[in-house]
Amino acid sequence: MLGECIENLRRRCPLVHNITNVVAINDVANVVLACGARPIMSDEPCDIQEITSICDGLNINIGMLKKYTAESMLLAGKKQKELGRPRVLDPVGVGASSFRKETVFNLIREVGFTAIRGNISEIKTLSMGTGNTTGVDADLADQITEENLDQIIPFIKAFSGKVGAVIAVTGSIDLVCNKEVCYVIRNGRAEMGKITGTGCMLSGMLASYLAANPGNELEAAAAAVCTMGLAGEIAWSRMQEGDGNASYRTKIIDAIYNMDGETLNKGANYELR
Amino acid sequence: MLGECIENLRRRCPLVHNITNVVAINDVANVVLACGARPIMSDEPCDIQEITSICDGLNINIGMLKKYTAESMLLAGKKQKELGRPRVLDPVGVGASSFRKETVFNLIREVGFTAIRGNISEIKTLSMGTGNTTGVDADLADQITEENLDQIIPFIKAFSGKVGAVIAVTGSIDLVCNKEVCYVIRNGRAEMGKITGTGCMLSGMLASYLAANPGNELEAAAAAVCTMGLAGEIAWSRMQEGDGNASYRTKIIDAIYNMDGETLNKGANYELR
Amino acid sequence: MLGECIENLRRRCPLVHNITNVVAINDVANVVLACGARPIMSDEPCDIQEITSICDGLNINIGMLKKYTAESMLLAGKKQKELGRPRVLDPVGVGASSFRKETVFNLIREVGFTAIRGNISEIKTLSMGTGNTTGVDADLADQITEENLDQIIPFIKAFSGKVGAVIAVTGSIDLVCNKEVCYVIRNGRAEMGKITGTGCMLSGMLASYLAANPGNELEAAAAAVCTMGLAGEIAWSRMQEGDGNASYRTKIIDAIYNMDGETLNKGANYELR
Repeated sequence: MLGECIENLRRRCPLVHNITNVVAINDVANVVLACGARPIMSDEPCDIQEITSICDGLNINIGMLKKYTAESMLLAGKKQKELGRPRVLDPVGVGASSFRKETVFNLIREVGFTAIRGNISEIKTLSMGTGNTTGVDADLADQITEENLDQIIPFIKAFSGKVGAVIAVTGSIDLVCNKEVCYVIRNGRAEMGKITGTGCMLSGMLASYLAANPGNELEAAAAAVCTMGLAGEIAWSRMQEGDGNASYRTKIIDAIYNMDGETLNKGANYELR
Repeated sequence: MLGECIENLRRRCPLVHNITNVVAINDVANVVLACGARPIMSDEPCDIQEITSICDGLNINIGMLKKYTAESMLLAGKKQKELGRPRVLDPVGVGASSFRKETVFNLIREVGFTAIRGNISEIKTLSMGTGNTTGVDADLADQITEENLDQIIPFIKAFSGKVGAVIAVTGSIDLVCNKEVCYVIRNGRAEMGKITGTGCMLSGMLASYLAANPGNELEAAAAAVCTMGLAGEIAWSRMQEGDGNASYRTKIIDAIYNMDGETLNKGANYELR
Repeated sequence: MLGECIENLRRRCPLVHNITNVVAINDVANVVLACGARPIMSDEPCDIQEITSICDGLNINIGMLKKYTAESMLLAGKKQKELGRPRVLDPVGVGASSFRKETVFNLIREVGFTAIRGNISEIKTLSMGTGNTTGVDADLADQITEENLDQIIPFIKAFSGKVGAVIAVTGSIDLVCNKEVCYVIRNGRAEMGKITGTGCMLSGMLASYLAANPGNELEAAAAAVCTMGLAGEIAWSRMQEGDGNASYRTKIIDAIYNMDGETLNKGANYELR
């Protein structure tokens, strides 16, 4: 059950290293704390390997990629690979520039990831850049809908098999896949897209769940994605007259803070395919 | 009417590039989302031209100017000039160092701006550095009041004509001028000054309004300034016992999120001079 | 009385320069505003001395130390020392890498600090690195409790005497010491540890209190620490069903915003040893 994953997280309190963008960095740290882990956010190359060594997991987010952070990501990623600890990649806006694409393709080759989380466009960009250029990708819509699920799921499973990572694709419907099984998750609300960094927050939480649930990657990733979506629903039910995206952000983090295994088990809305 | 400007913004959802300071970067992104646009915050020189090319407008803010961001600002600004898209300058604390002054004077020469937003001290510093050193500036008080309006307005209009940009001067009274017309705006509250980055948020919103209202720069800028001030009033009316500047920040962003053309038309408090 | 310290702060509105980490930078700026001071957050080496010169105090925080910020910290610290203005050090996670340790030891030597604020582990790391390696430190637990107070207080006093700074050690019990007197403070709540950057916010506030209370360093530091703890208690009393760490953060800053001398005098819970 997914609820056990958050219970493990709250009991184990892993230390999670996030090399993330400065837009969402404060929210990511607060979400990592809210779900039960402890955040470290350092991104300086000169001591990044020393710092990442004391951490139980790593979250790499390219939202505001810079030359020095690209260097830090590679160094930290390699060290965590060597130590056998979970590594999450969030390829924010990877399609926006060559520098982003090259950095991410290189990270996938050199580091390898336990899980990759992005929207469908980002995952398609990764898939093309890593050689999987069947006709399918080009045809894929940039939105996951009930209508195109049958087409998208096998593509994500194949990409998962190819890169050896759990793939979490978030959108109006969320998919969490390894090469064989896909969680199709229908939690969350469209209004979450009006808050900056909800994806980045989820990636920090995903690394936290993975760090606390070794050997149970697929379920841990699905639990993280359901936690975020469910928190979005709970937070929305607490919105009051005059509230907007800023209050919604606060209430989502609060809902994660108050999440427990029972609430997650009851509220998680998914099917396996 | 100003209300149309926000209706256009909500309908067109422009992509707005912000090279801004890390203090306010999260609030700027959430305000850009709140008013109906979509934010990109990248500031790495090596791919800044590629990234800014896909954006409908650019907001440059020197609040925490660094050498590499000064380079990014120049590159992005030139590219957006070439593409003919709106460019906003927020010369935060420009008078605080030679590095800031030189960077900003150079940006004004090389990039040219559609609009410049600052407080009266910053605008005076720009005016002096760009050659307009009549006796007037030196005499100008560093606060706009009902008493000195008649002296300040012609100075701002002349500066607008000189640099070819709409000038938005914010303070206890806000002025939005081109070389001929000045909106004198009496929205907002003094307590907004107790929140970090309200000016930075407004500059992100200003770029959003300009991107969605091409050819209507003066009115779009006035609409952005009125939206911020009116949001400050609406948010204040929602403050409760024990609330302070942190709650006020949240409520201001929420009020922007809920702003529509009708509310703006009713609440905007301005005269033309 | 501690209350006078905040009254002085609200009356004098000092300008406080913070070279801090990007995780907490927005919260630090809002807390500095909330307590009555005005923040400047610049960290670019090339104009840092020019900028710090106009400020009444300096707060250095190594939470996300980078090479260029280490350079800025040294330059700004030396300038403020030369100008005789208060300098605060927050050695966040100093034990996590050699780069952090070397930077901090060098800052202590070259700059000297009016006050240093950290948790007991960080203060122990500083103490060892600056030569004070009596057997005591190694024996010190990494948590201040009623049981080990008698052992810790003399150690902190000795360290204060050695580095010539007021030492503020925060944890479940807070200690604010010079070489002779120790404020033992029992304000605050454990849940404050679930918010990222509460220590960083306190350091910004500490620099603000020092800047407004020259010649009264020990009491000013104790007042800052009590203000933070008391704000945590007031904020907690305002928490509602469903609130979590994000709401708590907002309410803490709000409580600082509303703090006055009378509230502080009534709520401060301390003894002198």
